[in-house]
Amino acid sequence: MPTKTNDQALRERAERVIPNGMYGHMAVRPRLPEAYPQFFERAEGCRLWDVDGNEYIDFICAYGPMIAGYGNPRIRAAADAQRERLDMANGPPAALVEFAEKFTRQVSHAEWAVFAKNGNDATTVCNMIARGRAGKRKILVGETAYHGSQPWANRMSRGTPEEEHVHYPTYRFNDIDHVTAVAEAASGDLAGIVVSTFRHDVPHEQELVDPAFARKVREICDAEDAALILDDVRGGLRLSLDASWSEFGVRPDLSAWGKAIANGEPLAAVLGTDAYRDAAQHVFFTGSFWYQGAPFAAAIETLDVLAETDGPRHMERVGQQLRDGLYEQAQRHGHGIRQSGPPQMPMIKFEDDPKTEKGNAFCAAAMRHGVYLHPWHNMFLSVAHTEDDIAQALEGTDKAFAELS
Amino acid sequence: MPTKTNDQALRERAERVIPNGMYGHMAVRPRLPEAYPQFFERAEGCRLWDVDGNEYIDFICAYGPMIAGYGNPRIRAAADAQRERLDMANGPPAALVEFAEKFTRQVSHAEWAVFAKNGNDATTVCNMIARGRAGKRKILVGETAYHGSQPWANRMSRGTPEEEHVHYPTYRFNDIDHVTAVAEAASGDLAGIVVSTFRHDVPHEQELVDPAFARKVREICDAEDAALILDDVRGGLRLSLDASWSEFGVRPDLSAWGKAIANGEPLAAVLGTDAYRDAAQHVFFTGSFWYQGAPFAAAIETLDVLAETDGPRHMERVGQQLRDGLYEQAQRHGHGIRQSGPPQMPMIKFEDDPKTEKGNAFCAAAMRHGVYLHPWHNMFLSVAHTEDDIAQALEGTDKAFAELS
Repeated sequence: MPTKTNDQALRERAERVIPNGMYGHMAVRPRLPEAYPQFFERAEGCRLWDVDGNEYIDFICAYGPMIAGYGNPRIRAAADAQRERLDMANGPPAALVEFAEKFTRQVSHAEWAVFAKNGNDATTVCNMIARGRAGKRKILVGETAYHGSQPWANRMSRGTPEEEHVHYPTYRFNDIDHVTAVAEAASGDLAGIVVSTFRHDVPHEQELVDPAFARKVREICDAEDAALILDDVRGGLRLSLDASWSEFGVRPDLSAWGKAIANGEPLAAVLGTDAYRDAAQHVFFTGSFWYQGAPFAAAIETLDVLAETDGPRHMERVGQQLRDGLYEQAQRHGHGIRQSGPPQMPMIKFEDDPKTEKGNAFCAAAMRHGVYLHPWHNMFLSVAHTEDDIAQALEGTDKAFAELS
Repeated sequence: MPTKTNDQALRERAERVIPNGMYGHMAVRPRLPEAYPQFFERAEGCRLWDVDGNEYIDFICAYGPMIAGYGNPRIRAAADAQRERLDMANGPPAALVEFAEKFTRQVSHAEWAVFAKNGNDATTVCNMIARGRAGKRKILVGETAYHGSQPWANRMSRGTPEEEHVHYPTYRFNDIDHVTAVAEAASGDLAGIVVSTFRHDVPHEQELVDPAFARKVREICDAEDAALILDDVRGGLRLSLDASWSEFGVRPDLSAWGKAIANGEPLAAVLGTDAYRDAAQHVFFTGSFWYQGAPFAAAIETLDVLAETDGPRHMERVGQQLRDGLYEQAQRHGHGIRQSGPPQMPMIKFEDDPKTEKGNAFCAAAMRHGVYLHPWHNMFLSVAHTEDDIAQALEGTDKAFAELS
């Protein structure tokens, strides 16, 4: 059994000075199984070491940001060089403009960019720009979709009066009739429809977008002169180097990005079309760190690394290798599993496991064999995952399946 | 005249790929005078160099974050050492707990801490926790007070339906009768009152808080079982190493921090009392980068530097030196000026200058003489500003006053 002495000591200290001992996605209930450490000491490539020195092949990638490997030397060097000259100042360094140029060249619908810190900053700014242009109020969001934890996007907990959601009617993902009906009810007051890259809201199984649904949303937005807002914060750059719906030809008016765009340096972005440029000029949004330099330098290099490695296809290939291996092992060990979502962002669920008990037991066993999976959140591949890493991880999951039997 | 060739070229490139050529606080109209560069190349101590190599003694400090000097070697080394081991991962490094322990020991009302990225994240999380505890809805905010640009805090631009402000009634700062009346109107549904450290909302003159007003707000919150939420994002750590209202004995229930706490590494914090711990456990808030390691390492070191240098008193002293010098120069050159706010965060306005024309001309002249002031936003001192730096800056402002005459 891996030791957890230091992790346990830190958890006890944290309990005293942090409500629950932790906030945010590590504090969500149900908590991760006990085998999961809460505190980490080192990260490199696709590997993580916890504060007790246990090593893991990681399939969470910091919940998305790590797309080119923890501490990617090229990206880290670019960020450090910018930091050495200037990180924060009264205005940004040239790297802001260079990244805006590069990112808008790469993403086909984009004619301009603005930047922020959180993915949720980006989705909020999209809503404000959509409303600012239209002079209308309603923003449709997917039922249980995750666009951040700010009040408008947060129906998960106490602390938000229901009036904060009055202009955010919900539609069912991939349900053409439903989104049509909800949009009709908002007709004349419809400022925008926010769509996730695909359905990836916890704890549901993932569901790829039906291109017919995507086209219908585009059609509604065109008819209502409303903004199609693609929330590519979680999915962005893993499925495509363009906006994720570009593969079937549906272009958003506004897209929101975050997580992976600077390989872990804190950066979010909104990309938009010229039709929304004037509105973007008349809506005020900012933050103390929104001109920070190092993340722009990291982002420029991240796009280069992903282009040079054909990143989305690499992640698809190693993700498929993991998926195929897990399928074969589950069959051989007599377990029914359901794997959902794109191979780059896989999810594994056990059949007949409504309380995720099998899932927790399997993932806890995998942890003990050095493989960091997730029992109820989608996982993430990176271009730092090699075929050898996947093969090694599958040795661990094979033992985990065996222990489950 | 300092050249602006590179800055101008970058502005032209930015115009094509960024609405207005810039977003956020540099894009607010009225824009800063033409003498101000938009893009920066290097920063060190209290000095900035723009992309054309012009050097400035800086009194903006990146709008607050830089409190211990740009690139402070100790703080930078601590952040870099953390980055070298681990910055982003599936969970935080030990530095998160160490900073939570250190910060809650330092701030007298604090019994727990949680962290975020933007100051506005912190003010929003305060509201959510206050409402989550009380099961009530109204949050009182100061008229025109600045708590961020998220929709609830943003009445400045298009893009936010007025319904988003229905549960945020406004009171006039330092007006005991008014805040009492507004609170009475919300009685029974009052979850919290958000107060700024002092009145620092642009473009008004700054106004220190009247301790009697502060005590009255505390009294109302006690009577209504509502949260006194101190927004110390801008003022925090410059007036006091404790929460800023501690000097006259008014303790908030929740306080919001950002900007300076990690000397420019992106970090925000909420501190709270035990009465709010349970609510904090039941409200969901998170972001992709909220466990990032380097900012915690920087924040630990920032608190040490500020304690060892008696930071608030140092900034007060050099701020007063600047203020006294400007007063003497204005008198000698025959200009009426009004200086407001604490010396650590000074503001300078010209009398009979409703359109800030004299202010703009003076600040533009100071820029040409290597001194970066601000004509309509409060400024910021740091512990990197020495008496010699102030003396040198005053040589520049003396020439600027002379040119104005």
